[in-house]
Amino acid sequence: MNATAPLREPAVGALSLAAWMTREVARFERAAQQQLPPAELPPQRLHEAIRYAVLQGGKRVRPLLVYAAGELADAPAAGLDCAALAVEYVHVYSLIHDDLPCMDNDVLRRGKPTVHVAFDEATAMLAGDALQAEAFKVLSDAPLPAAIQAGLMRELAHAAGTAGMCGGQAIDLAAVGQAMTLGELEQMHRMKTGALLRAAVRMGAVAGAASASTLVALDAYAAAVGLAFQIVDDVLDVESTSAALGKTAGKDAAQGKPTYVSVVGLEPAKAWAERLRGEALSALSDFDHRADRLRQLADFIVLRKS
Amino acid sequence: MNATAPLREPAVGALSLAAWMTREVARFERAAQQQLPPAELPPQRLHEAIRYAVLQGGKRVRPLLVYAAGELADAPAAGLDCAALAVEYVHVYSLIHDDLPCMDNDVLRRGKPTVHVAFDEATAMLAGDALQAEAFKVLSDAPLPAAIQAGLMRELAHAAGTAGMCGGQAIDLAAVGQAMTLGELEQMHRMKTGALLRAAVRMGAVAGAASASTLVALDAYAAAVGLAFQIVDDVLDVESTSAALGKTAGKDAAQGKPTYVSVVGLEPAKAWAERLRGEALSALSDFDHRADRLRQLADFIVLRKS
Repeated sequence: MNATAPLREPAVGALSLAAWMTREVARFERAAQQQLPPAELPPQRLHEAIRYAVLQGGKRVRPLLVYAAGELADAPAAGLDCAALAVEYVHVYSLIHDDLPCMDNDVLRRGKPTVHVAFDEATAMLAGDALQAEAFKVLSDAPLPAAIQAGLMRELAHAAGTAGMCGGQAIDLAAVGQAMTLGELEQMHRMKTGALLRAAVRMGAVAGAASASTLVALDAYAAAVGLAFQIVDDVLDVESTSAALGKTAGKDAAQGKPTYVSVVGLEPAKAWAERLRGEALSALSDFDHRADRLRQLADFIVLRKS
Repeated sequence: MNATAPLREPAVGALSLAAWMTREVARFERAAQQQLPPAELPPQRLHEAIRYAVLQGGKRVRPLLVYAAGELADAPAAGLDCAALAVEYVHVYSLIHDDLPCMDNDVLRRGKPTVHVAFDEATAMLAGDALQAEAFKVLSDAPLPAAIQAGLMRELAHAAGTAGMCGGQAIDLAAVGQAMTLGELEQMHRMKTGALLRAAVRMGAVAGAASASTLVALDAYAAAVGLAFQIVDDVLDVESTSAALGKTAGKDAAQGKPTYVSVVGLEPAKAWAERLRGEALSALSDFDHRADRLRQLADFIVLRKS
């Protein structure tokens, strides 16, 4: 957002943030390839649709947050993969359902036809439904102690339900064409996208059996990063092109949906995101270099251009 | 199915099966009333739709199976309520999504307008999505040891996913207007309805930390009961009226969906259900009177008239 703010690159091992992200995204893609039911296993069409939806790329922000928080909490690698898969499956299922004609009726996602266009509506609905089940299945199969599995289930289920993602979607539905106060807009996004981003951070830490005080600090970090993520999305929706975003730019404004930019204005929204970046970093001030990836991700989320 | 086969009523405490069912269904309804988010909590429309879908009655076969298996395994009452809620929430979410225009396009369920008719399609989809999350939330909040919570999550997630309910739905979708062998039909139902019925039985036992050998016996019981349940459904679809069923009778045949009756014929289907009742009872032969409710439920499922 602020062209003069440099991406910080402290020494975490030998890897730059970009190299770490490339490595961890590849790690996630491998884990998903391996964990998802093969496309040739019946029912093939359903499995094809699920793999199509999950394996078509994306920034993988939630898995990266899981991995970064897992690094802080020294979580075991295989268990962390399961947490990353679970949270991303819930995110992808929500995208599939969001794109359906009865919701946003979107035909393009990451530059490719949406699932109901590439397959059909019924298959898209079932693929989303199955992915949510798959998320909890992967947690239940994770090589982690039962207490940690149960803790991960708690984080994900609370974030996905009516107090989190689904509730935020319902508020979003009701908001089209309505005036919204800034408080209402924040509350909607805290639920719609913030809850799952927070779950990603917390799940990475829970997988490493982090202490309660660590989780409190991470909550403050995740709240700031989650809100910043949405504000930056709104700014990019105004400032960027469809090609750069891989989805239809300017859509929110066209649909009459309230955005941070429409409520507070473009420049104040940018300044706010920058302030939130500062808050996210402050929340991590008690941690040593093991929190550097989380720090770098806060930078990345606010400074990204797509 | 067989008018001469009596409903067995052995002495389990002082309660007849009918009285036990009434009591346990009331227990379930109370637990659901209490556990579900209140309708006046925002987002209200979503919470209203969820309560409308869950609290409109039904036979509650899955919760009854949970309670009956819990009785065998001496499971704690509050934990058992959570397992019963979770499995019924998954069942109800699948009904909401099944009724949507892109699936069965049904307007009537238990004699009342379906959720997308009473509310709207987007709300119905979100209500189903949220109920699946709620199912895992209630397990994660259950007053049970973490190992049991994790075990319950495993049962439910596997039963709900592509190897279970969602997979069966996908096969069902692809089957409309197609010829199906008896083996294919069985496989579809084993996934579409059998997996969740089996999960209900197993979850009741898992909530009581049942032994592996008990679970093996209950698997045989649940496989027989699950298949019988579907065969009886198909028989009732032919023999009963819409009024008695609370849903559109003769629908499967009208939609060109293969059924047990269409594949093997009416009388052989009835005889088969009766044989399966015998198999279910045989599977329980090593257990004492604590398995009586499960025995009675096998009778009920096969002998019911709606």
